[in-house]
Amino acid sequence: MKDFAGTPGTVTGLVLRIAQFMFAAGCIASMATTTSFFNFTAFCYLVASMGLQVIWSLSLALMDAYALARNRVLHNSILVSLFVIGDWVTATLSLAAASASAGITVLYFHDIGGCTIIAECFKYQFAVALAFLSWLSAFTSSLIMFWLLAAG
Amino acid sequence: MKDFAGTPGTVTGLVLRIAQFMFAAGCIASMATTTSFFNFTAFCYLVASMGLQVIWSLSLALMDAYALARNRVLHNSILVSLFVIGDWVTATLSLAAASASAGITVLYFHDIGGCTIIAECFKYQFAVALAFLSWLSAFTSSLIMFWLLAAG
Repeated sequence: MKDFAGTPGTVTGLVLRIAQFMFAAGCIASMATTTSFFNFTAFCYLVASMGLQVIWSLSLALMDAYALARNRVLHNSILVSLFVIGDWVTATLSLAAASASAGITVLYFHDIGGCTIIAECFKYQFAVALAFLSWLSAFTSSLIMFWLLAAG
Repeated sequence: MKDFAGTPGTVTGLVLRIAQFMFAAGCIASMATTTSFFNFTAFCYLVASMGLQVIWSLSLALMDAYALARNRVLHNSILVSLFVIGDWVTATLSLAAASASAGITVLYFHDIGGCTIIAECFKYQFAVALAFLSWLSAFTSSLIMFWLLAAG
């Protein structure tokens, strides 16, 4: 299999995984410090989806770090197929969760204009922004993985 | 370039484009017959995104039909790159719009429970369901296109 930036076991790949992990963890932290996120189905879904993203990205970051440290190559087609499926599932769930939460944030803070506690609103918006950043890095990873699989 | 089910100029490709077009048009029709969708930013975004999907899918369906009728092959890399970019942009926008609208539908009809006009609620939910179906077929098309480009 070809070797290019962002594939498993490269420094760019590791950086992408760490970025996904950091953004997703930040999103969960921002949501968890609000007092009423559990009243909104979409925000609960966002936390669940970011939790999945955290677990997935952390596992793959550790695998990348191990491959880099030991100079191992992770490019066999079964492993890459697994990465592709996992990446696509987490990226799609992240985008759906981020969009659903963004829909509600816009509804509350723009359409209705009913944001009474400024600190809370800011936290919701910050969490949504971090979720989109996490999706963006996960999407980049998933495109690279898919390209790697297809290009053989 | 390889020739497999769903690539431009095949019957499966044409069926996928027609499905995208029908679902997106159905979604717009369902939204447009409600009385207050323009009060919600997410629903307006859904209509705009489905409008883009309708235009894109219809153009590509016509191109597929022309290629089928005249027995032309549409597999040159510049054309496929264009299809890949267009497909990814429309598919991502569709998923984001469908999720944002789904977030609001769930908020209104489950979390708050404030659905007073049953016919309207049903139309919103139906539009969201059609948007997800449209995204699903657009996503299939975009995966096939990306595979075609990567596999060369």
